[in-house]
Amino acid sequence: MIDVCLLGTGGTMPLPERALTSLLIRFNGKNLLVDCGEGTQVMIRKSGFSLNKIDAILITHFHADHISGIVGLLLSMAKCERTEQIEIIGGKGIESVVRSLCVIAGDLPFEIKYREIESPRQSFKINDLRVETLLLNHSVPCYGYAFHLDRIGKFMPQKAAELGIDPRLWGKLQSGQSVESNGIVCTPDMVLGQPRNGLKITYCTDTRPTPELNDFAKDSDLFICEGMYAEDDKLEKAAVNKHMMFREAAEAAKNANVKKLWLTHFSPSIKDPDEYAEFARSLFENTTIPHDLELETLKYTD
Amino acid sequence: MIDVCLLGTGGTMPLPERALTSLLIRFNGKNLLVDCGEGTQVMIRKSGFSLNKIDAILITHFHADHISGIVGLLLSMAKCERTEQIEIIGGKGIESVVRSLCVIAGDLPFEIKYREIESPRQSFKINDLRVETLLLNHSVPCYGYAFHLDRIGKFMPQKAAELGIDPRLWGKLQSGQSVESNGIVCTPDMVLGQPRNGLKITYCTDTRPTPELNDFAKDSDLFICEGMYAEDDKLEKAAVNKHMMFREAAEAAKNANVKKLWLTHFSPSIKDPDEYAEFARSLFENTTIPHDLELETLKYTD
Repeated sequence: MIDVCLLGTGGTMPLPERALTSLLIRFNGKNLLVDCGEGTQVMIRKSGFSLNKIDAILITHFHADHISGIVGLLLSMAKCERTEQIEIIGGKGIESVVRSLCVIAGDLPFEIKYREIESPRQSFKINDLRVETLLLNHSVPCYGYAFHLDRIGKFMPQKAAELGIDPRLWGKLQSGQSVESNGIVCTPDMVLGQPRNGLKITYCTDTRPTPELNDFAKDSDLFICEGMYAEDDKLEKAAVNKHMMFREAAEAAKNANVKKLWLTHFSPSIKDPDEYAEFARSLFENTTIPHDLELETLKYTD
Repeated sequence: MIDVCLLGTGGTMPLPERALTSLLIRFNGKNLLVDCGEGTQVMIRKSGFSLNKIDAILITHFHADHISGIVGLLLSMAKCERTEQIEIIGGKGIESVVRSLCVIAGDLPFEIKYREIESPRQSFKINDLRVETLLLNHSVPCYGYAFHLDRIGKFMPQKAAELGIDPRLWGKLQSGQSVESNGIVCTPDMVLGQPRNGLKITYCTDTRPTPELNDFAKDSDLFICEGMYAEDDKLEKAAVNKHMMFREAAEAAKNANVKKLWLTHFSPSIKDPDEYAEFARSLFENTTIPHDLELETLKYTD
């Protein structure tokens, strides 16, 4: 299972009643943060997650509302006596941008490992989580992230017994490792059923709709997508500034056959996103207009 | 008169219930901001002051809790279509630090004029406000600021009449300008009484106590001073990290003969500063433990 907490739902600038969009993901005891604008560290505190236990920060792009809080967060980690390395992941230049912001940070008591995304579609693992990237269509290079918690098939003890595998080695097989027992090399596929449904979360802001997005978000359990504007008369503005409309996010959700859509990154011009809840659900039924600190635990479905 | 609004009262890091210390000053239609940590722009919005009408930002020093919010504030001003120049004032390197933070800002649609403080004691004017600086004793160069709204003497119409000055020129004399009338050069001192009490606000964080501070804050109507820690067992920590205790701020207030003391920049380790209110007033009677957005209008006393 995966806990997700959408720390904020705003775009462009933090407001008294709406923090900037950023996502916390907790899985198997690991914590990831996606984007870190001004005030994100305060929202982490409000969420009850531990600020100091974040293992990696993934940045979508280098606009201030997605990254300007990173220096404050790193410093607060330092004040909390963090010594563990942290990984910071982002597009080309992530290291120089973070270093530039850290002009006011002095020496941090922990190491920062940078991972620069080098191609539009890339895949890497953070512990058990498989992360995929997609280069979006924004005014600066911007990446969407898809998080996959894959799940191997069910262990079939009768098969392992038939093969004469020592039961003390079954645990290794169950966790996907090969073993050798009584002269037989047994690979997991010999004793595991078909891979079961894992969990997939796709996070996508800021961008215009792209055809690749439908494939990228395909079958997500949760699709978190920007809905910068709700009303059709804002389409031109969205097109110029390379953002998505509610309608466009809903279309992508439909095309990608996702289970659930959370809209986010609301323009400051939207006073109360809840006013558009019915409209949003008329476009894609399983749409949520999340509030800051929206929390959900995604569980395996089989 | 001067309106002051202490936007936050915290030090080190922003907390859900306590914003970072920063001060708004409004006088004669001009607005100054002193320090701008993470979240200050949100507190400006909460205060009801106009974010876009800030004429100058004064930075005490380059620690993140005093400056990291500046890029977000400048960008929000840009989003509000600001085109007027803004002045940013701070110690040596202010321009390069702000430029480094602005790596994520792109081109701003207004000019930034930088004023670098070059000596420990310096004096300059921002419109009618006279600003004095004092180099404090912190772990990095840090400046205190004293703001003086000076006030000329009362205009004496009978003196102007005796001198035969054309009454149409009295207004200029009243505002402190010299005039020539009927062949006589009349300087303001000829028709004005003794200078009247103006207003003085002194803002001082972060520092250890210094002897110069007493003189610097002398006779302030309002002395805003850091009280990082309240309890005596924190003195060693305060000395090492170069901060002030409640007790030390109160002593400075007494020595400087100020009218009123506001403590601020409370350590995150102080859960509820109000618990120390009586203690603080036992040290200096007219002490306030301000809350975020503490607002006061200072008025002339004569």
